[in-house]
Amino acid sequence: MVRENEIRAAEVAVDFPLQMDAGVIFIGRINTPWTSRLMCPRQGRLDGPVCTITLFEPWVRALDNITDFERLEVLYWLHLSRRDLVKQSPANDGTTRGTFALRSPVRPNPIGTAIVKLAGREGAILKVQGLNCLDNTPLLDLKPDRTLFKPIAPPQPGDYETNEARG
Amino acid sequence: MVRENEIRAAEVAVDFPLQMDAGVIFIGRINTPWTSRLMCPRQGRLDGPVCTITLFEPWVRALDNITDFERLEVLYWLHLSRRDLVKQSPANDGTTRGTFALRSPVRPNPIGTAIVKLAGREGAILKVQGLNCLDNTPLLDLKPDRTLFKPIAPPQPGDYETNEARG
Repeated sequence: MVRENEIRAAEVAVDFPLQMDAGVIFIGRINTPWTSRLMCPRQGRLDGPVCTITLFEPWVRALDNITDFERLEVLYWLHLSRRDLVKQSPANDGTTRGTFALRSPVRPNPIGTAIVKLAGREGAILKVQGLNCLDNTPLLDLKPDRTLFKPIAPPQPGDYETNEARG
Repeated sequence: MVRENEIRAAEVAVDFPLQMDAGVIFIGRINTPWTSRLMCPRQGRLDGPVCTITLFEPWVRALDNITDFERLEVLYWLHLSRRDLVKQSPANDGTTRGTFALRSPVRPNPIGTAIVKLAGREGAILKVQGLNCLDNTPLLDLKPDRTLFKPIAPPQPGDYETNEARG
């Protein structure tokens, strides 16, 4: 069973810093069929339920041209997750792994990422498949899938740098 | 040429909210060969220069088991980027696209994502290839590449939900 908010046997928590280094804004809302962490998929699937992403103003104009892309990368804020665990036990069996070796929602900056299939757009609302987050998750960002995006800006020197060339 | 911080012809800026909705902490530092935006690659390459990611305490323990993965997803804070553009002109040619149809560093929440090849670990320091960010970029998160990660937590109901099944 997934975590509600408990710390499990052998897990390690640290003192979380009181001071933040930067701020994020919530630019939209994600709606999914899952209202409990005990129901969410562990991973999204591209044939999964159609979910909606609703952009808030003034960000709706930033959706222009988004339907050029079949798949999007979605970044969201895992608003219910604790942030202080460095070692976690996903199977709750006394064995642990480091947080950065897991895709658990519990992490120092609880930012989830997903690759979704764009099924359609109606104004401020996108229909997508491939999410696994809770209903009402706050949206942070949308980008074209990296494998579909070709840079529009002119070439830069770094484009041509390989490790060998630096010798 | 990439943007320093100007607004270009036909680009659209909005009033950025004064109030943040949540805070992020910088959990490490990324070092790359690029000290100017005018030099950075537009996209990272897996045969690119070896860069380093240094984790700050108390997060070093969260690296345990990370070398199980050949590729990682890296999230970082694009600390020099403006956040208020909804329409951008990457080619600076008077044509614009919506910010969410671009992978530009200029976005309401300036979070960059990269898939990197893990070339090695020495204590708090990871060596990676595939980044395209500036030297001294703050680190937000590390996760196993989604295509390499198999959930450890037991199955959940949502794992089996397809769109068809929901009819």
